[in-house]
Amino acid sequence: MAKATALVSAHHDLTVQFYDVDPMRVVWHGNYVKYLEDARCVLLDKINYNYDVMEQSGYVWPIVDMRLKYVGSAKFGSKIRIQADLIEYESRLKIQYLITDIASGQVLTKAHTVQVAVDVNSLEMQFESPKILLDKLAGWLDE
Amino acid sequence: MAKATALVSAHHDLTVQFYDVDPMRVVWHGNYVKYLEDARCVLLDKINYNYDVMEQSGYVWPIVDMRLKYVGSAKFGSKIRIQADLIEYESRLKIQYLITDIASGQVLTKAHTVQVAVDVNSLEMQFESPKILLDKLAGWLDE
Amino acid sequence: MAKATALVSAHHDLTVQFYDVDPMRVVWHGNYVKYLEDARCVLLDKINYNYDVMEQSGYVWPIVDMRLKYVGSAKFGSKIRIQADLIEYESRLKIQYLITDIASGQVLTKAHTVQVAVDVNSLEMQFESPKILLDKLAGWLDE
Amino acid sequence: MAKATALVSAHHDLTVQFYDVDPMRVVWHGNYVKYLEDARCVLLDKINYNYDVMEQSGYVWPIVDMRLKYVGSAKFGSKIRIQADLIEYESRLKIQYLITDIASGQVLTKAHTVQVAVDVNSLEMQFESPKILLDKLAGWLDE
Repeated sequence: MAKATALVSAHHDLTVQFYDVDPMRVVWHGNYVKYLEDARCVLLDKINYNYDVMEQSGYVWPIVDMRLKYVGSAKFGSKIRIQADLIEYESRLKIQYLITDIASGQVLTKAHTVQVAVDVNSLEMQFESPKILLDKLAGWLDE
Repeated sequence: MAKATALVSAHHDLTVQFYDVDPMRVVWHGNYVKYLEDARCVLLDKINYNYDVMEQSGYVWPIVDMRLKYVGSAKFGSKIRIQADLIEYESRLKIQYLITDIASGQVLTKAHTVQVAVDVNSLEMQFESPKILLDKLAGWLDE
Repeated sequence: MAKATALVSAHHDLTVQFYDVDPMRVVWHGNYVKYLEDARCVLLDKINYNYDVMEQSGYVWPIVDMRLKYVGSAKFGSKIRIQADLIEYESRLKIQYLITDIASGQVLTKAHTVQVAVDVNSLEMQFESPKILLDKLAGWLDE
Repeated sequence: MAKATALVSAHHDLTVQFYDVDPMRVVWHGNYVKYLEDARCVLLDKINYNYDVMEQSGYVWPIVDMRLKYVGSAKFGSKIRIQADLIEYESRLKIQYLITDIASGQVLTKAHTVQVAVDVNSLEMQFESPKILLDKLAGWLDE
């Protein structure tokens, strides 16, 4: 997970809730998947292509690959930042994440997700990203 | 929550998973709502009127009222039984639940849920249960 | 659930996430229990008696009773407010909740939770709230 | 994720619950992490080294790396099997997973998790698996 250049970036901050913490007194590893989605949706809102807009555009974008590396652990009440960077868009949507503890700056989790477009009518997976995604990214591609 | 006569009963047994346990080393109170649904779906399958059949019948049945009383607590690895009893069906679907620790027989949680039929087309709430529910319950009402 | 006078009030606002929404395209009813906790923790932070401070004070405060009435439904992307009002504290901690859609003002859910103090050493339930809670509430009780 | 030889194997079968399904009418991708844990705990029970025994042995084994590849999708009511294969144990615990739809045999998800031992007293990560793990695996290593 070397650092790639991000076309679009966004972040989401949150306070770790009691219900996300396990008997080891740290966030249960599966709950970080929600945190990734929290930040991904901020990023997708930024390009005006969040889940509801995707579907109206005739495509759904299921996650086909996800990886998380856990470096540190967050506790109840920790304030954490989830940074999301869009690093691929041509044939698939690849987003890289970095979760850090806001107070200490310590890295907690590194992750990425890969999504591909599926036509809602034919249910066929698209091997090139549909034009609508490029349109949504136009403001960033021009730069 | 006095004991009412059950028209239909069902139960679901499960082993408490690590991800459902909180830092106090007991199941987080909100996770019991999943356990209620586990048992409710066994009951609804028994009358062949689970969520997918409901929707095909032209109705959805949202939960409009839910109450849980927590008497004991379940730990990681506990084997628990969720008993579900259908106790009202004429104007609404009321199900009563009793969660017990299988090994000790100790009562952990008492609960009930109330669902009402909503027409999927008009989105209007039904003040009497639609005929389809009575048809599904026919085998039990005859007894 | 008539309106009681609140000793302390707090609220939490959130955007409904995709992972909390069910196939009926509304928030799954069990997920509102998390939202209640989100707001309860803001309230408990306000009186400096959140879960970690509770435990350091020698008590845990499990939820013993919880009720939710579902009036409306929240969708993906909805911005909602969870209002939490502390309405009883002498023998137990009772908090009342009102969840509303921020844009429309529509009431979505009414709820309450009841917690009682349990001594962490003896594991005995306290029939009167321990002095520490009254100390924490002193600033509000004086008013 | 080529097929490695499994030292110990186990599986867990489950019926997909309504609360795990998202607005796209398939299991939300993050919920598969629970399914992996369901099967992992069956495997760990088989070698008598589940989370509670781990902790009593003086070690916790946090997940440090997790990857999921989503090939198909499970729907409400689908009966699925999660196969878990222990494929590394010398310096870390690596488990490979295969989730299939029981009725069709279709592969839904391929995944792996990596756990490392952390001494509960020193909080130091162990670069070789502690003797207790080898003892627990003795019956399988002898074969």
